[in-house]
Amino acid sequence: MAAINAANEGSLPSYGGDGYTAGLQARLAELFETAVSVYPVATGTAANALAIAQISPPYGGVYCYEGAHVVTDECGAPGFFAGGVSLLGLPAADGKIAAAQLAAAIEHANSMGVHHVKPAALTLTQATEWGTVYSCAEVQALAAVAKAHGLPVHMDGARFANALESLGCSPAEATWKSGIDVLSLGATKNGALCAEAVVFFNPGLAADFERRRKQSGHLWSKLRFLSAQLLAYLEPHVWLANAAQANATAAAMAAGLKALPGARLLQSVDANEIFVALPETVVQGLERQGFGFYRWPAPGVGAAVSIRLVTSYLTTHADVDDFVLAATQIASRS
Amino acid sequence: MAAINAANEGSLPSYGGDGYTAGLQARLAELFETAVSVYPVATGTAANALAIAQISPPYGGVYCYEGAHVVTDECGAPGFFAGGVSLLGLPAADGKIAAAQLAAAIEHANSMGVHHVKPAALTLTQATEWGTVYSCAEVQALAAVAKAHGLPVHMDGARFANALESLGCSPAEATWKSGIDVLSLGATKNGALCAEAVVFFNPGLAADFERRRKQSGHLWSKLRFLSAQLLAYLEPHVWLANAAQANATAAAMAAGLKALPGARLLQSVDANEIFVALPETVVQGLERQGFGFYRWPAPGVGAAVSIRLVTSYLTTHADVDDFVLAATQIASRS
Amino acid sequence: MAAINAANEGSLPSYGGDGYTAGLQARLAELFETAVSVYPVATGTAANALAIAQISPPYGGVYCYEGAHVVTDECGAPGFFAGGVSLLGLPAADGKIAAAQLAAAIEHANSMGVHHVKPAALTLTQATEWGTVYSCAEVQALAAVAKAHGLPVHMDGARFANALESLGCSPAEATWKSGIDVLSLGATKNGALCAEAVVFFNPGLAADFERRRKQSGHLWSKLRFLSAQLLAYLEPHVWLANAAQANATAAAMAAGLKALPGARLLQSVDANEIFVALPETVVQGLERQGFGFYRWPAPGVGAAVSIRLVTSYLTTHADVDDFVLAATQIASRS
Amino acid sequence: MAAINAANEGSLPSYGGDGYTAGLQARLAELFETAVSVYPVATGTAANALAIAQISPPYGGVYCYEGAHVVTDECGAPGFFAGGVSLLGLPAADGKIAAAQLAAAIEHANSMGVHHVKPAALTLTQATEWGTVYSCAEVQALAAVAKAHGLPVHMDGARFANALESLGCSPAEATWKSGIDVLSLGATKNGALCAEAVVFFNPGLAADFERRRKQSGHLWSKLRFLSAQLLAYLEPHVWLANAAQANATAAAMAAGLKALPGARLLQSVDANEIFVALPETVVQGLERQGFGFYRWPAPGVGAAVSIRLVTSYLTTHADVDDFVLAATQIASRS
Repeated sequence: MAAINAANEGSLPSYGGDGYTAGLQARLAELFETAVSVYPVATGTAANALAIAQISPPYGGVYCYEGAHVVTDECGAPGFFAGGVSLLGLPAADGKIAAAQLAAAIEHANSMGVHHVKPAALTLTQATEWGTVYSCAEVQALAAVAKAHGLPVHMDGARFANALESLGCSPAEATWKSGIDVLSLGATKNGALCAEAVVFFNPGLAADFERRRKQSGHLWSKLRFLSAQLLAYLEPHVWLANAAQANATAAAMAAGLKALPGARLLQSVDANEIFVALPETVVQGLERQGFGFYRWPAPGVGAAVSIRLVTSYLTTHADVDDFVLAATQIASRS
Repeated sequence: MAAINAANEGSLPSYGGDGYTAGLQARLAELFETAVSVYPVATGTAANALAIAQISPPYGGVYCYEGAHVVTDECGAPGFFAGGVSLLGLPAADGKIAAAQLAAAIEHANSMGVHHVKPAALTLTQATEWGTVYSCAEVQALAAVAKAHGLPVHMDGARFANALESLGCSPAEATWKSGIDVLSLGATKNGALCAEAVVFFNPGLAADFERRRKQSGHLWSKLRFLSAQLLAYLEPHVWLANAAQANATAAAMAAGLKALPGARLLQSVDANEIFVALPETVVQGLERQGFGFYRWPAPGVGAAVSIRLVTSYLTTHADVDDFVLAATQIASRS
Repeated sequence: MAAINAANEGSLPSYGGDGYTAGLQARLAELFETAVSVYPVATGTAANALAIAQISPPYGGVYCYEGAHVVTDECGAPGFFAGGVSLLGLPAADGKIAAAQLAAAIEHANSMGVHHVKPAALTLTQATEWGTVYSCAEVQALAAVAKAHGLPVHMDGARFANALESLGCSPAEATWKSGIDVLSLGATKNGALCAEAVVFFNPGLAADFERRRKQSGHLWSKLRFLSAQLLAYLEPHVWLANAAQANATAAAMAAGLKALPGARLLQSVDANEIFVALPETVVQGLERQGFGFYRWPAPGVGAAVSIRLVTSYLTTHADVDDFVLAATQIASRS
Repeated sequence: MAAINAANEGSLPSYGGDGYTAGLQARLAELFETAVSVYPVATGTAANALAIAQISPPYGGVYCYEGAHVVTDECGAPGFFAGGVSLLGLPAADGKIAAAQLAAAIEHANSMGVHHVKPAALTLTQATEWGTVYSCAEVQALAAVAKAHGLPVHMDGARFANALESLGCSPAEATWKSGIDVLSLGATKNGALCAEAVVFFNPGLAADFERRRKQSGHLWSKLRFLSAQLLAYLEPHVWLANAAQANATAAAMAAGLKALPGARLLQSVDANEIFVALPETVVQGLERQGFGFYRWPAPGVGAAVSIRLVTSYLTTHADVDDFVLAATQIASRS
């Protein structure tokens, strides 16, 4: 917020010809230890769909997890931006697709010839939709398969900071050193007002991206307000600290809930999301007390109810304790 | 062929203002016992994709069987024609989705709100990709769910004649009387040179379809050559006789193969396609003798090999006997 | 800015389920004296292109001034959003197309049948690209022609406040009472950080617009930051006062420049833009002194140079005096 | 027709894996004296729009004559196929744009930056919409400008045979030796049933074109029926003889009409179209006698009426004599 206020002082060149946007480019190059092309946009949907349109033709297919955010939560944005591109979803119990799956799918497509969409790109969500995190080795194995067939690799990093914090590696290792060509770097879910950035590590892939952003209405005339947010966000005491806080409280929440009678964690809690099955009475009790979370259908939970809990940079350990205590009390009463 | 030759005589108005096209409209109205709007095109991909674009907006989702021809074999045509529309594939072991599945999927979509594509249409393949045929009751149940949610229903009738022959009902009962709003009526697979037709039973749905066809390059200046083919094709002794021949030889083939040691029919043979699992040695032997068919991966066949056989109006019972005899001899030798 | 800061306090429902967005809807209904459907977005390109996609099919043509912003400055956004829609530009020396032109163009299109795109919509820029303003009578005449042929009417109101201030009529009279169905209400050029709104006066036209916005990546998760800006902007002492200031300084600038030897105003200065032809030496002198403006090619200026000057809510009469004085001094020296 | 009948014999591989399609490729390579990639399709709209989509991105602009067939007669097909591409029409009294015009337009676009669509391609119609023919030198000059800015060049050759016959040069000189990268080779207007071909002289430009054709529904399963038509058409005694007949009768028609009192040829008659202004009474008289032609509005004809006459391979000199005689008699009576 303070960053936006500062950017509001005085009058500056429009459409990105300002110091903030140049500064962001430099900051990200330093952070990722390589030259990058950076394009701030206001929403994660725009970042993902623009990136996918950049790397796949209309007759292309983009491999992804079948429950990926781009498939289920963006109202068909990739298809719209990329002129009818197909998302080719692969199953994965924990949200992480495997290199062998990808290889088999590409081989099948190639055997079908012109009737099948052309294998065109791979997109991975990091952290995943199930709160898990791909290891660098897993990303490398997937990217190796993709590259062997000429497919560029995109990472949907709506929760990239949480994943990075979880991996404990450098931003470079988590991305281009593991084979990522273009990253949707999310900030909105981790504290920004409205700011995401499409970051190209492979400069050849960014050709004309500026016009693609403009044609889709995502070039701000006062772009400095986006860039300033991202610059402020990328200070270590902001983005990494925020993510660390969210991950730590998620881990505490998972530990607390796991101990409840009848509770079962459905996924490894690698970042800031917890998927847990609880007895119906416990879920109802928590809902009645006004706690906010989604019921999240998952296979194999039987009579229990599966829910999704998301922690954020604003979540405190006291919040976690309150929630676990409430759940414990409800469970003991029922 | 003779029909095209006849249409080649003399000089006639272009772009459909000819007697053949008007005649086709009248012939189909008679055949389907209702007023129809008919648009001939040259390929099944065009027919399906134009029909889907007509009934779904770019932000829509079209429910279908996950292995439907529109999903797997048209190189993303529906997404291209409909500006990014999503095909929402539902699983079905025999290629036939069930009304309850559809209802659950629509309810899930509605619960997701604006993030999910809008439930927009239903498309059914008849006969299906697995050689099975929806009964009229099954179509009615699916259409009832669709209509309860305001979704129009399309039928991909690339093998419509085979399905009709199998059902033994009238064209009207197989379509609009069971809730179908628009039909891709295929002729190419059943004898025509290159002719399909998009048939609207619901005139309101056909608004501006003429321009949609033109904009996609599918309006022929010499449209009479398409219409004349379809008119000739729709003579009972052509389309129904062709389909009857194909279905009968398929049934004979199924009966013959079922008796082989180690053989197992994978699907009910309702039309002119047979999916059968055979021992690897038998399949190899048939391939070595030059019989043409595809190996067709299917689940649960173990060490056997699943193949797809398709009969046509040109297939004779002697052809079937030859194939079955060859298979029997190979099996007995191994 | 203060409005955004206030909206930053506390935690609120996302995707528009907040009080700010509801308040904006109510505020605009009051302002326009009718029920409206309002959709905030971040850029004018998005507002225009989404509105056009909503009212024209891919095979449609949208009539506009041939030099309209949507034609020349949005990198093809309408064609992209509307799946290939054609913009049908009509000539106009002052940026204002005439009702008779529109009528002739639609009649020509209709005479061409299916080969021509379908006349689908009309879009007017208010104030225009040449700093002129359509009178309400002019808008009414154009809208009457459009409606007689079933075409909805869009207004690109990037400079709507300036036009309104110039017209001296009510917002209702300037829009729906004159036949406008949907308005791109601009705020960014008149003081907001990044905020435009698509305003539907015809509720039937807004169906599913929410999903169209989402699919194109223009639905903000923290939508309150847009709505809050617009709410603050629409206070009379902000938007109208800002526009009045810009228009008044433009008028003063025009009066001052007109008096210069060799100067000629190229267009009526109705809002906050001045197109003026000046001697080359004067233009060069002003450039050398660091004044910021564009050389703007215009027909019929001979040896003179035409430039575009834009005043804003930040422009003061002192600024104008400085500019005119500088121009006068340069002119007198040369 | 005979060619299609021949292609109907026996059973052949589908989707182009047949001898006819390979033969066509070889025949065109020989004819054009270079390696080519050839893709038969059924309509000129498909050929043009697919070619344009192949050489321009959605955010691109394609330069053309403002009255080009792709602009006025294809219902927005290029925009649809190329995801919103803009056609940038340049004025030209005789349908032929000039190299200097093109250079100025590209320079203007480049000065506008990201707000303007990207100069992406050039498309020329040969023969033009006004019956004129670009000389090879004119094509070369235009292509040189295009190439200097990195733009590939497409030729809409719906009347290519007529142009070739008029130029008296080789097919190679008329196309790639003059800078054409991709040609829509028309046959339907010059005798074929329904057959056009997209011919790439620059193999690098044809990458993935096969899938683009498939995704748009323009890949025929029985492709041999298109290829066979084209093979038969491209025999010198067919395509060139047909064009020669049409051109010769057009020249005779022009000579005959020019001599009428009050008649004025509006354009040079280079191929098989005549644009002529005649007295209203003469036009009415001809219409009353049942001659088929279009009234074709043209500037500067005063009280006269401009019409378009098109000759074809079926037009005889007797037909021409009849028409001219009738016009002469009507003129002498009035």
